[in-house]
Amino acid sequence: MIWIDDRLVPESEASVSYLDRGYYFGDGIYEVFRVYGGQLYEAEAHYDRLERSAGAIGLRLPYTRKELGGILRSLLDSEQVQDGSVYMQITRGVAPRAHDFPAGVRPVLLAYCTASARPLAMMRTGVSVITRPDIRWLRCDLKTLNLLGSVLAKQEAKEQGADDVIWHRDGTVTECSASNLMIVKDGAVLTHPANHLILHGVTRAVVLRLTREQGIAAEERAFSLETLAQAEEAFLTGTTMEIVPIVRIDGMPVGGGVPGPVTRRLQQAFEATLPS
Amino acid sequence: MIWIDDRLVPESEASVSYLDRGYYFGDGIYEVFRVYGGQLYEAEAHYDRLERSAGAIGLRLPYTRKELGGILRSLLDSEQVQDGSVYMQITRGVAPRAHDFPAGVRPVLLAYCTASARPLAMMRTGVSVITRPDIRWLRCDLKTLNLLGSVLAKQEAKEQGADDVIWHRDGTVTECSASNLMIVKDGAVLTHPANHLILHGVTRAVVLRLTREQGIAAEERAFSLETLAQAEEAFLTGTTMEIVPIVRIDGMPVGGGVPGPVTRRLQQAFEATLPS
Repeated sequence: MIWIDDRLVPESEASVSYLDRGYYFGDGIYEVFRVYGGQLYEAEAHYDRLERSAGAIGLRLPYTRKELGGILRSLLDSEQVQDGSVYMQITRGVAPRAHDFPAGVRPVLLAYCTASARPLAMMRTGVSVITRPDIRWLRCDLKTLNLLGSVLAKQEAKEQGADDVIWHRDGTVTECSASNLMIVKDGAVLTHPANHLILHGVTRAVVLRLTREQGIAAEERAFSLETLAQAEEAFLTGTTMEIVPIVRIDGMPVGGGVPGPVTRRLQQAFEATLPS
Repeated sequence: MIWIDDRLVPESEASVSYLDRGYYFGDGIYEVFRVYGGQLYEAEAHYDRLERSAGAIGLRLPYTRKELGGILRSLLDSEQVQDGSVYMQITRGVAPRAHDFPAGVRPVLLAYCTASARPLAMMRTGVSVITRPDIRWLRCDLKTLNLLGSVLAKQEAKEQGADDVIWHRDGTVTECSASNLMIVKDGAVLTHPANHLILHGVTRAVVLRLTREQGIAAEERAFSLETLAQAEEAFLTGTTMEIVPIVRIDGMPVGGGVPGPVTRRLQQAFEATLPS
């Protein structure tokens, strides 16, 4: 079942107007909620970010947080999803094409859930990435539907035989195409500060909290491609990926070319935060 | 009537899949064709740009240029539009959400035409604009559906009592939110080079051709906000706007605060290119 136009409908009945501003401007925002054991994980952090994205683009959410929770609950119940995710997007609404905001239009919420297993093999063996210039706009902190830059990066990685891209702006590393990046350098975890150049990941925040709990030194500080190349470990964090080791960058092994001890320790600590 | 899913349908039957990549990634391209007297204006230039945008994002157009012409013709005939425009967008197709390109998916073409009068009053009296940092991605030369930056700029202009935004990157002027910018400085027309930082406007190219025909000095060269503030004239060019004088920038009059002689001369020359 799909939630759209204020109701739950079978997939075959879920369609969108060709005049939805999401379709011709990408004028909307989204969240992907993680589901473990039939329960939403870190739901409040996702609602917080959704509200922040909405506020920043001047979009008034059509539901309260409590109503959103009810919608997500009805989706999970209808699909009986145990492990998976819920995708939710909200566009500014349906109106004839004109750039400025239309008056008197109700935003359109689309949501559906998908069952999926945790990426356990990838978490164990790690992934290969390539580095590329970050060509995205300067509000990467907003989770909007303008994702063509990420689409092209992911496709390029695939065509190069890699799993993902690490982006940099003039040599300063930012993040991956759809996840945050952390490295271990001189024993400390480093990750780009949560400013306008990266998405403020929910898993990123969880992992930073775990470094404090585990007594692992961590710093939110921008670092260069040179520092990246010298990292002892590297990993990406994301809602569906959790913590995935990066074992190869631009064809060169990271550290020993296998997941490192800090990465594995954080994976274990993350595991302990999941509902049993 | 609307062209979608390989056929012409009444508006009430035109809907889009919620799994169209245009809807959740903005993964597509578009063109707006101008119609004068029932005929497409500079159609080949629009097809050229459409093909260039498609190539750059790895999207294979689902129709030949001749077939596209037939679709546009059927729309114009069905609506009997004399003066107006045709909007055409092509998304990568319908597939479950994943960033890399899906296999075996046919792109979705949406097209419709709209009757509209030429913006004669605006062309005569001019518009007011404000300057703002250009926060868009670094492939502004591609006419993609990732338009949230332009949406937010246009809305901000409106809220500030202005008509549009002039964008600059660190003080270097690029273009307007949905049109190109030209200024007159020391008697010569200046406009940003057609690189990755601006859209390569069809009307921009027509106007540059007209400067040559009219013996008006013109140069494709980046200029600063300071130069903009000292301009004798300024105007924007676009497919639907044609040539519109900018008479006020950030509250200050441009030149005498009325459309200048070079702008008016180019407007007249442009007028002469239209079908009678």
